[in-house]
Amino acid sequence: MEIVYFNGNFLPKEEVKISPDDRGFLLADGVYEVVRWYEGFFYDMESHVTRLKRSLGELRINWKMADDFPALAVELIRKNNLVNKPAMVYLQVTRGAAKRTHSFPSPDVEPTVYAYVWGFIPDITSKENGIKAMLKEDIRWTRCDIKSVALLANTLSFQEAYESGSKECIFVRDGLITEGSRSNIFFVVDGTLFTHPESNHILSGVTRKNILRIARESGIGIREEALPVNRIGFVSEAFIANTSAEVTPLIDLSGNTIGDGLPGPVTKLINEKFDAEIKAKKG
Amino acid sequence: MEIVYFNGNFLPKEEVKISPDDRGFLLADGVYEVVRWYEGFFYDMESHVTRLKRSLGELRINWKMADDFPALAVELIRKNNLVNKPAMVYLQVTRGAAKRTHSFPSPDVEPTVYAYVWGFIPDITSKENGIKAMLKEDIRWTRCDIKSVALLANTLSFQEAYESGSKECIFVRDGLITEGSRSNIFFVVDGTLFTHPESNHILSGVTRKNILRIARESGIGIREEALPVNRIGFVSEAFIANTSAEVTPLIDLSGNTIGDGLPGPVTKLINEKFDAEIKAKKG
Repeated sequence: MEIVYFNGNFLPKEEVKISPDDRGFLLADGVYEVVRWYEGFFYDMESHVTRLKRSLGELRINWKMADDFPALAVELIRKNNLVNKPAMVYLQVTRGAAKRTHSFPSPDVEPTVYAYVWGFIPDITSKENGIKAMLKEDIRWTRCDIKSVALLANTLSFQEAYESGSKECIFVRDGLITEGSRSNIFFVVDGTLFTHPESNHILSGVTRKNILRIARESGIGIREEALPVNRIGFVSEAFIANTSAEVTPLIDLSGNTIGDGLPGPVTKLINEKFDAEIKAKKG
Repeated sequence: MEIVYFNGNFLPKEEVKISPDDRGFLLADGVYEVVRWYEGFFYDMESHVTRLKRSLGELRINWKMADDFPALAVELIRKNNLVNKPAMVYLQVTRGAAKRTHSFPSPDVEPTVYAYVWGFIPDITSKENGIKAMLKEDIRWTRCDIKSVALLANTLSFQEAYESGSKECIFVRDGLITEGSRSNIFFVVDGTLFTHPESNHILSGVTRKNILRIARESGIGIREEALPVNRIGFVSEAFIANTSAEVTPLIDLSGNTIGDGLPGPVTKLINEKFDAEIKAKKG
């Protein structure tokens, strides 16, 4: 039986009852996080908690238990017998259930907190061989730095990419490549690693941050600078990064073969170092 | 007891159980409509149904019963003893409950359909005396033509306006005034009525459409053209329009007094004609 977390309790998923007044359901008024369990530990949980608090703060959702997320997540792993398996934990916090208005409920209502876990099968093939992605105009709002559940734009865009045989949709805003519908993106141009700077147009990815650290430690030149879409021809390597895909090479972007169509040396190096860190932590 | 509609049944609101897997809750993957009941009839229900179908089509949500919305709405009015009162009916259709993925569920799942009704107290004071509104950068996505539940941007923006003493937030995108967080906006400049043209940057309002018709029938000059925000000084009248506010004058926009700070003659004329049509329909 699948055990989930809902408003303070661990219970069978069937017993969860989201109110039709929930502002998550009515207005997309909520935030989320997804963390990865590596058979014994969560990957950089601290950064996820920091980002969760920031998202909550930007929306002024007053959930006081964000620091309890790590313990809650471990408990979910345990209760679902996933301690020794790769798994993912999803947490969503909405402003709560209240009469529908565009203004916030006053006084505050209790936030709705829901979390669940699932056994995760890493996509090794994509990580080794790379994937195709599709370029698409960025139709999202301009607060992509908030990890909100208002994901309709991401969903519609991803679906279009998916139907054309791609595994990710890469957004272009005002001629600049921002990020993927559920990942950050990196490029190698003349041996330097490019990625969009932190801004309101991208999510500040936990994996993104760690990749920049690894690249720095490896002596790879870094430029946190958006790549103009018309410079794709100059790109020798590209990869996406997120909690589930880790470092996954891009070998084709809307029909533009990246480099020689195979994962390149910088991508491979970062991928190996990323994997080595995980392995070392597993002990 | 409040009776609502949920997935084919009329039932007490307490019995509604939105699944935590609902894509409305997780991904804002749904659309909505709000219709107004004038003690005996719905205002231009036909246009609401047409727009609902369009929104569903844009999201490729396959709800076959959109044509039954009018009957469903009347039934809700009856069951809640609101036949002889002003009321509003809210309908929301999401893609349904499915394992969370950015891609659409395959095969399709049943959409989630939820509707409820509430007795409505028209804001006569605002309609007669006008309201203040606040200008704010339009942070929304670029598919505002879809009436989706991904309303976080609207909510955050409205809240900011609300806290500064305004009753609406008016969006500005690339220097042009688009619409309100929950209304369309009209301006009078040199006797001509201006409103943003139908596009991906505004919702095609049912009230907006009827106001344009009324203005046309009244011989008022119309230009469906966005007003640059730097031309506010040339505006002699302004008003917002939506299903609940009908025609509500704007007398102050972020500290800019509109005209002489009172509802102007064109606004009054349209307002009177709007009211007369309602009165005539009531018979």
